[in-house]
Amino acid sequence: MTDTPYLRVDVERLDRNVAAVAGRARELGLAVRPHAKTHKCAEIARRQLRAGAVGLTVATIGEAEAFADALVPTVPDLFIAYPLWLTDHKAARLRALANRARIRLAVDSVVGARQMADLLGGDVGEIEVLIEIDSGQRRTGIAPDEAGELARHADNAGLQVIGVFTFPGHGYGPGNARRDAADDEVRALTRAAERLQDNGIDPAVRSGGSTPTIGFASSGVLTEIRPGVYPFNDAQQLELGSCTADDIALTAIATVVHRSGTRIVTDAGSKILGADRPAWTSGFGRLRHALDARVTSLSEHHAVIEFPTGSPADAIPDVGSTVAMVPNHVCTAVNLVDELVVSDGSVRWPVVARGANS
Amino acid sequence: MTDTPYLRVDVERLDRNVAAVAGRARELGLAVRPHAKTHKCAEIARRQLRAGAVGLTVATIGEAEAFADALVPTVPDLFIAYPLWLTDHKAARLRALANRARIRLAVDSVVGARQMADLLGGDVGEIEVLIEIDSGQRRTGIAPDEAGELARHADNAGLQVIGVFTFPGHGYGPGNARRDAADDEVRALTRAAERLQDNGIDPAVRSGGSTPTIGFASSGVLTEIRPGVYPFNDAQQLELGSCTADDIALTAIATVVHRSGTRIVTDAGSKILGADRPAWTSGFGRLRHALDARVTSLSEHHAVIEFPTGSPADAIPDVGSTVAMVPNHVCTAVNLVDELVVSDGSVRWPVVARGANS
Repeated sequence: MTDTPYLRVDVERLDRNVAAVAGRARELGLAVRPHAKTHKCAEIARRQLRAGAVGLTVATIGEAEAFADALVPTVPDLFIAYPLWLTDHKAARLRALANRARIRLAVDSVVGARQMADLLGGDVGEIEVLIEIDSGQRRTGIAPDEAGELARHADNAGLQVIGVFTFPGHGYGPGNARRDAADDEVRALTRAAERLQDNGIDPAVRSGGSTPTIGFASSGVLTEIRPGVYPFNDAQQLELGSCTADDIALTAIATVVHRSGTRIVTDAGSKILGADRPAWTSGFGRLRHALDARVTSLSEHHAVIEFPTGSPADAIPDVGSTVAMVPNHVCTAVNLVDELVVSDGSVRWPVVARGANS
Repeated sequence: MTDTPYLRVDVERLDRNVAAVAGRARELGLAVRPHAKTHKCAEIARRQLRAGAVGLTVATIGEAEAFADALVPTVPDLFIAYPLWLTDHKAARLRALANRARIRLAVDSVVGARQMADLLGGDVGEIEVLIEIDSGQRRTGIAPDEAGELARHADNAGLQVIGVFTFPGHGYGPGNARRDAADDEVRALTRAAERLQDNGIDPAVRSGGSTPTIGFASSGVLTEIRPGVYPFNDAQQLELGSCTADDIALTAIATVVHRSGTRIVTDAGSKILGADRPAWTSGFGRLRHALDARVTSLSEHHAVIEFPTGSPADAIPDVGSTVAMVPNHVCTAVNLVDELVVSDGSVRWPVVARGANS
C-alpha cells in the first residue's frame, strides 16, 4: 500500500522513450550521453546504457559520485557538464572519483581553467575537458569566438581539451523556439570548433542537444547529444510539442481532497510536483486523464485544478478519487522523493542522487 | 568543509524571530501553534515549544510521525491542518500516532468527515477535529455559513468538533493584501463560529494566522495563530514587508561560477532554492548582501543574477567568491536538503520530515 501522493513510473513507456531516442541517434550517427539529473536513478541509467548510451551526463560532483557507487561493477563514463569552481575539497573528491570512473569536466573561463589545473595537479592529464559555449541561453558558457583563446589557455595550463559543448536551453519556449535553438546550437558549435582548430586544438567532441531539440538534431557538426527529460517527459514537453500525452512515463498519483463546482484540489503540491512554472506553460502541471483541466495554483500540499465552465458533473473527479498528475518539470519532481514507485507498485527504484547538489 | 551550495541557519537571528512572535502572541493573549512544515526540524520545534508554543501544526500524517519520533520523550500536540481523505492505511497510521501524540484533525466536507469517523472507528473520540473555513484563498475549506451544518454532520458521525480554522493565504500579495486577508480571516472565523453555536457546538478553538498577517493579528475572535515561515523568513516575506533583511535567518551559500558584465551565475539553482516565483516577486530570490541585484532566472544548478546597469566592477562578485542567497520560499528550500548547516558549520540539524508528503 502506497499512500498518496507519490511518483509512479510506467516502465513500458519509459523503455519505449529510451529506445526511440537511441534509435534516432543511431540513424543520425550521434552518440547519446543522457543527462542523469532527470532521473538520478541507477535502474534508468542502466537501461539507457544498454540501449547504447556512451556514458552519462551529470551536473554535480555529488551526482557523479552517486552513479559511480550505484553502477558498480561498471566503471562509468561521466561528463560533469558544469563550469565547476574547484576548491581543495572538491578537487580531492574529483581525484578520488577519477579512480573509479572516466571523468570529463567543463570550463568556461580562464580563471576556472587555471584553478582546475592548479588544484587537480598531477592527475589533471587523466581528465578530459570540454569548453562550454553559450549558444543563446545567456546562462553559463562563453561566446563561440572566444572558445579558441580559452582552449589555448586551458591547454597551456595542462588540461586535456577534447572539444566543445552547449546547452540550447532557449529552446524551452513557445513558437519556433525549439527549431531556432537547434539552429543556434549548430552555428555556435561550428564556429567554436573552428576557433579551437585555429588554435591547434582538435575539437573531436561537439556535444549539444536537449529533449526539446531532439526532433531537429542533425549529423555533421554534432557528435553527441545530451537530452535529459526524454525517458519520462512532462507537462512542459507536452506543451512545447516535444512529446504526446502517450509518451508521459512519470506521474504524481494524488487524491482529490476537495471539490467545489468545477474546482478540485488534490494532495499533490509543490513538494511533490515541484514549483516550476514558466510563463509560457498553461499552469502548474496537467491532469493525465483530463487534458482540458488546468492546474491554476499550487501550494506545498495542494494543487488547485479548474475544469472548463459547464463541464458535466461526472467529468469532475469526486473527493476521495485518485488522479494522475503530470509535473511541469520532471527533473525537479524526481529530486523531491527518495524512491519512485514502478508500474504496479511491487518495485521501487531508489533516487540515488537525490539532493546531490554539490 | 561544506561544499557549496548548502543551506545555512543563523541561530541568533532564528532565536530572535522565534522570541518576537512568542512575545507578540503573549501580548495579544493568543496561543502559537507554529507550522512545522517550514523547518521540518526537531531542534527548531523544541525552540518554539520552549518559547511557549502550545503544540505544532503539520500538513501530513508523515510530518506528524516524524515529529512524534524526533521529539521523544515529549508527547507532542500536533494539528494536521489539512482535510485528509482517509484510507484504511492512513487511518491505521493515525491510530498508531494517537498512542504517542495528541492529535487534531481537519475536515472541510461531509463525505470527508464520514470517511474519517468510519475508518477511525472506536478511536475517534480521542481525536479532536476542526472545521476548515475558506476565508478568501479559494483553496480548501468551506464557506463560513456552511460551517454549522458540516460541524453538525461531523458531530453526528461521532467526531469531537472543537472549533474552526482558516489559512489566510491570499495575504501573500502586493498592496493591502496582508491587511485585507487578516480582516477577511476575522470576519470568516466570526461567522463560522456563530454557525457552530447555532448548531449547539462550542467553537472553543478559532485558529488562523500566517507569517504575513502576524502584524495585523488581534485578540477577540482568534484564539490561536499558526505562522510557519517566521523563524527563518525569506525573500517573499522581505518583498511583502513582513520582515526586514536583518530578520532573514536562512540563506543558501553559493559559489559564483560565471561572470559576464553585470551578470553573474551561482551554483545554487532550483534544486536548493526551490522554484517558487509568484508574479508579484522581483525574481527567484535575492542576494543577501546586494539587495539591488535581481535573480532573473533559475535552472536546476544555476541562478542567473543581474546587477544594475552601471554597477562598478568591484560591486560584482568575482568567479570563485561565495555569496549568500535568500530563497523566495524557505519551506520548499528546506524540503530539498537532508540537513541544515548551523551558523559556523560545526553543527548540522537533520531535516527529519523532509519529503514526508503523505
